[in-house]
Amino acid sequence: MALIVQKYGGTSVGSVARIHAVAAQVHALANAGNQVAVVVSAMGDSTDRLIELAREVCPHPDPREMDALLATGEMVSTALLAMALRSAGCPARSWNALQLPLETTGVPGRARIERVGCKRLTEDLASGVVPVVAGFQGCAPNGDVTTIGRGGSDTTAVALAVALKADECQILTDVDGVYTTDPRMVPDARRLPTVSFEEMLELAGQGSRVLHLRAVEFAARHGMNLRVLSSFQPGPGTLICEEDPNVEAPVVSGIAFNSDEAAIAVTHLPHEPGVAHAVLAPVASAGIEVDMIVIAAPNEGRVDLTFTVHRDDFGEALKLTQGAAARYPGTAVAGDDRVAKLAVVGSGMRSHAGVAATLFKTLGQEGINLRLVSTSEIKISVLVEERRLERAVRALHAAYGLGAAKP
Amino acid sequence: MALIVQKYGGTSVGSVARIHAVAAQVHALANAGNQVAVVVSAMGDSTDRLIELAREVCPHPDPREMDALLATGEMVSTALLAMALRSAGCPARSWNALQLPLETTGVPGRARIERVGCKRLTEDLASGVVPVVAGFQGCAPNGDVTTIGRGGSDTTAVALAVALKADECQILTDVDGVYTTDPRMVPDARRLPTVSFEEMLELAGQGSRVLHLRAVEFAARHGMNLRVLSSFQPGPGTLICEEDPNVEAPVVSGIAFNSDEAAIAVTHLPHEPGVAHAVLAPVASAGIEVDMIVIAAPNEGRVDLTFTVHRDDFGEALKLTQGAAARYPGTAVAGDDRVAKLAVVGSGMRSHAGVAATLFKTLGQEGINLRLVSTSEIKISVLVEERRLERAVRALHAAYGLGAAKP
Repeated sequence: MALIVQKYGGTSVGSVARIHAVAAQVHALANAGNQVAVVVSAMGDSTDRLIELAREVCPHPDPREMDALLATGEMVSTALLAMALRSAGCPARSWNALQLPLETTGVPGRARIERVGCKRLTEDLASGVVPVVAGFQGCAPNGDVTTIGRGGSDTTAVALAVALKADECQILTDVDGVYTTDPRMVPDARRLPTVSFEEMLELAGQGSRVLHLRAVEFAARHGMNLRVLSSFQPGPGTLICEEDPNVEAPVVSGIAFNSDEAAIAVTHLPHEPGVAHAVLAPVASAGIEVDMIVIAAPNEGRVDLTFTVHRDDFGEALKLTQGAAARYPGTAVAGDDRVAKLAVVGSGMRSHAGVAATLFKTLGQEGINLRLVSTSEIKISVLVEERRLERAVRALHAAYGLGAAKP
Repeated sequence: MALIVQKYGGTSVGSVARIHAVAAQVHALANAGNQVAVVVSAMGDSTDRLIELAREVCPHPDPREMDALLATGEMVSTALLAMALRSAGCPARSWNALQLPLETTGVPGRARIERVGCKRLTEDLASGVVPVVAGFQGCAPNGDVTTIGRGGSDTTAVALAVALKADECQILTDVDGVYTTDPRMVPDARRLPTVSFEEMLELAGQGSRVLHLRAVEFAARHGMNLRVLSSFQPGPGTLICEEDPNVEAPVVSGIAFNSDEAAIAVTHLPHEPGVAHAVLAPVASAGIEVDMIVIAAPNEGRVDLTFTVHRDDFGEALKLTQGAAARYPGTAVAGDDRVAKLAVVGSGMRSHAGVAATLFKTLGQEGINLRLVSTSEIKISVLVEERRLERAVRALHAAYGLGAAKP
């Protein structure tokens, strides 16, 4: 008998028919002798509809009230799933964050989980009841309802699994696992049976939409096995776990990409301490997240600094950078919001040379210019023109032998 | 400075525009120097839509989960009203039943309020914040979400007013007060400036839809002044309070009616102890509420028993009564589901004769048969054919001089 926490996303519970399908899946898992706890998101687009309603009331709704409003979406889906389970003969009970309580920090909209009250959940599990827990929401120290950020239900599930000492945390979603790259772009992309936490962190951080970065971090920190499964069809999915030191890691596991990027380059900066800070501080202060940062080696006492931001933040970031660079005479600021990032990720890179060489050679043969290159232990990220992205991903997928039909 | 609890019903907060209108009304009351706490129902038909959704999931949803589901409707409206108030410059905070807590018994769907946690509300009021409280919902001893029955938000408001020692509890609704009778039936019906608790209890119990019986009972028990006001137009409304012993009470205050009745008559029952119980017990055991019960004086050792039930329960009640009566040979059971009840209510009846005489004379002149008559200290109820109801109400309204233009 295993203790399993399952998380179903909004699409998986998007209709009454889908709720019944999920109930059948949960019931089967419980009938097979497992203890099951379930975390659910709000149904389909209901969170978006609540946000819309709030914005109709006022353009900038109070964050505390916004959280109180949004949390109702998950309360609806938990109650409906518990009803469906009970009507199918599977004892179940819904729980919201105030009831457990699922304690978080008090920052509305992006609270962090601090403690999961497990008493009621363990009572349910011990008596054969499936607890159905509202994802995404929490309870602040002062008793306010909080939310933990979009996609936070993944994190709720991992936190629950860790607190309950579950054997596995299963994320049921609309894809059947983690792929070598997006199958919509590369038809022979292959589902990976296992991925290490480190690889998954790089993939999630580099644009893979399968799992939320925070949930992976949380699972990695606590060594909680995560499994990505389809809620629409059976299958083994992808297991995300600690790397097995006895198994040789694949050199390259997958290729993630992200075409929402924009690049800003400041050239001819003086090569002196504090320059990078002076240029980037105004951007960071404006709450704009900076992704890749590359400083080229100095040349005649001058350096070039390039960084990327989300495309939505491009205009503001460019203006702030121009302002910051103005204090250094002779510099130039250039921006490009038609760029895309791709990242080659693999734990085996640590011990294998030649991964970067293959990348440079392959993209060179395809006639694709590299705008920026940044490397970590198990990842090489490059920035390319957006219109070249697809060709680059396909060529690299083939070059690293990631396809279903291995070369 | 007064402390006022206001309750706004579903129609009053039925749209974003209506929520802004309510916010403006609350803000004005607070700006006039009052401490204001607000109780709201779910928006418009949202409770009905949630019930429908649950019934799509399963025909008989689990009552605990039904309560958890329905409570979300009021959480949505409280958050939106708090947002609207804040955006209008009026500090406000939403509160649900789990947060206060608003403690109830543990019976799903019809829990009773046991205690209102006031700490957070008094903190809000003391610091000039308007607390916006979710009506209709509660928190069971075991932490489950409960609901206190439809229309329960009126009761929530009174319970809050009592707990906070408010000066007045205002029920804002779609009518501007309590009328001598339904103005849709009698055009010259008059708004009553004041009504005693007793009269209001009889009016509410006899079919007046303005206030919930439970809320009036609660207010009467604690001597909490209730005021019915329109949320759509200004006006003094109707104050419901203790009878002033120094003011002569009106002989007749109003006429309530209810056309959802059905009558069942059992004739020629033996005149012996336990007969009424034997006939009515199966009906009561089936959870069917019996309203009027009249036993006619015995005649040749035989009595007739007539009672009324809600029209929806007629078929089942008739069958149960036939079964019960079968053990008494010679009895006959007859049913009629085309009857209506009307009740003439007035505190002054206690000290005035002739009210019943006027009723009998007036209905006699109109050629209307009385099917059943039942009296209490301040009320005379009669059962008439449903198709005669309107004529009966109009004639009595005129006969008692209740119209705007007094005779």
